[in-house]
Amino acid sequence: MTNNLEIICIGNELLIGKTLNTNANWLAKRVTNLGLNTTRITVVSDNITEISNAINEAINRNPRFILTTGGLGPTFDDKTLEGLAEALGTTTETNQQALQMVKEKYQSYAKQTKTGEIELTAARVKMANIPKGTKPLPNAVGTAPAVVAKHQNVTIFALPGVPSEMKAIFDESVAPVLQQASCGVTFYETSIETVNVMESEMAPCVDEVMHTNPYVYIKSHPKGEERLPQIEFHLSTTADDVDVAKKRVTEALVQLTELIRQKGGKITDIKSTE
Amino acid sequence: MTNNLEIICIGNELLIGKTLNTNANWLAKRVTNLGLNTTRITVVSDNITEISNAINEAINRNPRFILTTGGLGPTFDDKTLEGLAEALGTTTETNQQALQMVKEKYQSYAKQTKTGEIELTAARVKMANIPKGTKPLPNAVGTAPAVVAKHQNVTIFALPGVPSEMKAIFDESVAPVLQQASCGVTFYETSIETVNVMESEMAPCVDEVMHTNPYVYIKSHPKGEERLPQIEFHLSTTADDVDVAKKRVTEALVQLTELIRQKGGKITDIKSTE
Repeated sequence: MTNNLEIICIGNELLIGKTLNTNANWLAKRVTNLGLNTTRITVVSDNITEISNAINEAINRNPRFILTTGGLGPTFDDKTLEGLAEALGTTTETNQQALQMVKEKYQSYAKQTKTGEIELTAARVKMANIPKGTKPLPNAVGTAPAVVAKHQNVTIFALPGVPSEMKAIFDESVAPVLQQASCGVTFYETSIETVNVMESEMAPCVDEVMHTNPYVYIKSHPKGEERLPQIEFHLSTTADDVDVAKKRVTEALVQLTELIRQKGGKITDIKSTE
Repeated sequence: MTNNLEIICIGNELLIGKTLNTNANWLAKRVTNLGLNTTRITVVSDNITEISNAINEAINRNPRFILTTGGLGPTFDDKTLEGLAEALGTTTETNQQALQMVKEKYQSYAKQTKTGEIELTAARVKMANIPKGTKPLPNAVGTAPAVVAKHQNVTIFALPGVPSEMKAIFDESVAPVLQQASCGVTFYETSIETVNVMESEMAPCVDEVMHTNPYVYIKSHPKGEERLPQIEFHLSTTADDVDVAKKRVTEALVQLTELIRQKGGKITDIKSTE
């Protein structure tokens, strides 16, 4: 079984450039640090067929997990769960456990209103309509429950689009599952910032270091212009053991640093994160 | 022919969460303002098969344009043009016009070096290897030429990942083509910020306003929590004429504003952009 994971972000606001997709970035970073590989991020509109197609296409690439964000709320354009149901070949129904979660939320909000009551309208009940055979997950921060579905070998988590809600549910209900799945694999990365060498000049050096250190992936990120070069080299690896990961990256770093100096480059910063 | 466009972003740094995908956001906003619809954003790794698959899948959805970002540089992991070639059923070859562009760049950089010379290494020539039958586009800011390809009814632009280079090439070589294709369609949007109404309470009101104003799309973006509600309502439309677009959004806005007030909500800000 692979450790592959796909992220699907749902929302017209992402496709018109109104909203910067910080959710995908946050999730990708957390997923990587938990030892899994994000193999694709897909952004689609608030349209049932688009959502269903994106989920089906992801399922057919056989990842271990799919995370969706967005489209779980009370409005007409929150269509993720209908799209998920279509992808799973089923329909949505009011889930009693989800309805209980929604009711309890409004009961707690109602205490703060003048009348002490909040009506359970159709828009509010809608948040408890989830695909048959799936389970609701509690939303500690907001109202709409998240959903977990199992389909063939894929586990699908449908998370809200509001960042604070998405993050809280990820940490509570998703991260523990991913961590267990990755069996303690560690991602380790180091970045070095350089000046005075061109990316094109360093390209064969990067090849050489990666050839000597086959488990380390090195990517150069030009930041200035080619003629006023400022390059970040990002070295990363995954390993079962954090010390092994560190040792691999360090060995590659020593070799790369020496080659940068030989080419007349200067290292201005080194940053490591686990 | 549709006005649909897909964006494909290539780069492991996006999939490990190292880099926030500001390129997709910038492009999506510009594309929308030029009157086209971004229907999907896909992020894949620096892998020829992944890139080729993503491009092929996009082609099969029959958009009018595909924009790719990233993977045009001199290093081993800049694989976009090989992926594009594979998707187009061809291979890359050294394009003389592209080679001339690369040569001229290095000649101009060479003037600033001590020796006055920069060797045209394999890594540098690599940037002039583009798919057969495609054309290079000048890169005013950086070194690697961009590429334009026509396949069936789709025009594909392969742009660099470095934001300053991507933006310059988009403005110079892509925007004029998109503008002509959209035949002057205008996108118009207005946002209003509210407090004291819950998103779930406003959901049926939004339905009502969209029913009365079928050309206006309204989306609510909760910013606070459901119990301490702070909602942004985003109204948008596209029309052949900017005055028509403004009139449509304004009529919907008047109706929505009244409904927000009736529910006890307060409007704290209104922003319009063209």
